[in-house]
Amino acid sequence: MTTTVPTIADITQPVLAARLQHKLDNKTKPLGSLGRIEALAQRLALILGNEAPELQNPQLVVFAGDHGLAARGVSAYPSDVTWQMVENFLAGGAAVSVLARQHGIGLTVVDCGVRHDFAPRPGLVINKVAPGTADALEGPAMSAAQCEAALANGAALVRGLPGNALLLGEMGIGNTSAASLLLARLAGLSVADCTGAGTGLDAEAVQRKIGILRQVLARHPDAKDPLAALAAFGGFEIATMVGAVLQAAAERRVIVVDGFIASAAVMVAAALQPAVLQRCVFAHRSGERGHALMLAHLRAEPLLDLGLRLGEGSGAAMAWPLLMSACAILREMASFESAGVSRQDENLANATTQA
Amino acid sequence: MTTTVPTIADITQPVLAARLQHKLDNKTKPLGSLGRIEALAQRLALILGNEAPELQNPQLVVFAGDHGLAARGVSAYPSDVTWQMVENFLAGGAAVSVLARQHGIGLTVVDCGVRHDFAPRPGLVINKVAPGTADALEGPAMSAAQCEAALANGAALVRGLPGNALLLGEMGIGNTSAASLLLARLAGLSVADCTGAGTGLDAEAVQRKIGILRQVLARHPDAKDPLAALAAFGGFEIATMVGAVLQAAAERRVIVVDGFIASAAVMVAAALQPAVLQRCVFAHRSGERGHALMLAHLRAEPLLDLGLRLGEGSGAAMAWPLLMSACAILREMASFESAGVSRQDENLANATTQA
Repeated sequence: MTTTVPTIADITQPVLAARLQHKLDNKTKPLGSLGRIEALAQRLALILGNEAPELQNPQLVVFAGDHGLAARGVSAYPSDVTWQMVENFLAGGAAVSVLARQHGIGLTVVDCGVRHDFAPRPGLVINKVAPGTADALEGPAMSAAQCEAALANGAALVRGLPGNALLLGEMGIGNTSAASLLLARLAGLSVADCTGAGTGLDAEAVQRKIGILRQVLARHPDAKDPLAALAAFGGFEIATMVGAVLQAAAERRVIVVDGFIASAAVMVAAALQPAVLQRCVFAHRSGERGHALMLAHLRAEPLLDLGLRLGEGSGAAMAWPLLMSACAILREMASFESAGVSRQDENLANATTQA
Repeated sequence: MTTTVPTIADITQPVLAARLQHKLDNKTKPLGSLGRIEALAQRLALILGNEAPELQNPQLVVFAGDHGLAARGVSAYPSDVTWQMVENFLAGGAAVSVLARQHGIGLTVVDCGVRHDFAPRPGLVINKVAPGTADALEGPAMSAAQCEAALANGAALVRGLPGNALLLGEMGIGNTSAASLLLARLAGLSVADCTGAGTGLDAEAVQRKIGILRQVLARHPDAKDPLAALAAFGGFEIATMVGAVLQAAAERRVIVVDGFIASAAVMVAAALQPAVLQRCVFAHRSGERGHALMLAHLRAEPLLDLGLRLGEGSGAAMAWPLLMSACAILREMASFESAGVSRQDENLANATTQA
């Protein structure tokens, strides 16, 4: 199975990092006064290996798939909503459609395994491994071969994308369950801590969901390594996203991670190749229970915290302008010297004299 | 002095608010899943009085002024940096210049009282009340007549601006001191809690700053009402901003509040006319000590929390795309009906049956 997992190189660059810090410190602003935007600028410059980084032709991909486990009532919505929302993405009416349009981000929807036959059309890639995963309570959500196929699909997809940034989005009724199971297994946390309301279950339904996920976890005691867990719990959209993340990391694209499900795919990819995380920018902390724990597990500090819990890549799209700002700050802001602005040092002496 | 303070009407609109909630709840997404962006959409629609709000021709104004108190060593930078940064704004090299360009926001710099004579040029408005305020340790920073003039300048400026949104920015070495004093006096808090490092004082210098601000506060025991406090502590850029905020509120423009100094101007305006706050969107929580307390005093929940502490309107500009997103969500997202997507209710029944 390892043929589809590329080796992701460490891109730590002390010399470039020092040059970037010097450059940021010489911009016309008090030291460090752009806060986390400065760290973001550093990260983007290190990913792209460029002191004057420029994000080009950003691509948001919505990975879509259905889940056998959805029939167990783990979601507030029926599985049909997956394909209906794919149609909505393509028609331009979904939140992510609106946001991608606002920011000039290319939008591609991938059928990774939706239980529906789509008519081919622009913006839709058909990479259907199967029409939905199997019920993870009865056996693995997918076979090892299916998992392999999904990973290869994700890699091939990214190879064909223009630009140097990949924004992760997803759609799949039931996929918070898969993400919760992956988190519980790979981070060694309790299912209750990892499980939330998803699309809007009430408290009683969440308890029922937790009960079902506990059974699923118990059903797959040997699914411990990242790919075995991925195959056991699903889904096709997450597996395809893992392949896409690995490929994007290999190409040193900037990877903008959305919420709980996208972070789960990154968690699997990082468990396989830790240096993947060097290429990631975490867009937001989701309102979905479990995401804060997952971010802590990944030592990730997201940019936004707006209580979003929609998925689709909506949070990644909303954070996008901050990435553009960080690059523009590095490229376009004047230095103290070039702008003829006095530096701090001169006055610290004054202040001491006057005190 | 009350001639320059317009009456700001309450714009609570229960019928429109209910219609907006219904509209948001019918968009193709789980209920409430766009988190704080939904509340933001509501607020913008209520300010503009429109179910399909559209932000047009946004204007960021950088209010600049110098402070007599700066000579006491309350800042890490010399006063000359104020005019040097004005030149930098106009030359396009400052952070706010870069960010305004990125987002297509109009940028105007106003000399409200800088200790420097600027050559007139496009993008610069000369509204100089005096070349810097007086030293607030020796007397009021400005006279009542000067305060009145600054308020009138701010109102006239906004009357001449296109568009329906005003983003607040400022520049003035020493102005975190004025903002700290206003917060301490108007919110009844201790100077120590209200005072931070500003542009980057070390711990010892902050203690010295606190000592000076305590003396200033003690020097003006009777400056208790908002305009008296504003005149006592300054500065001209804050007073002009207060006039601008009141005028923008009267015209029902959207007011995007930046960090500590801009929030201080809004605090003064809201102390005069509380309904001003209905028109405000707070962009971010600044890294400057005191801002969190000021936001709590105003019961404001900012959008971003990125450790920014630059001022200039840089945080307002960075939050701007979120306001555009909120409006676009209301205007462009499909409803369940229009997109043919199944609703939650159908499946809750299914889930119960299957449980």
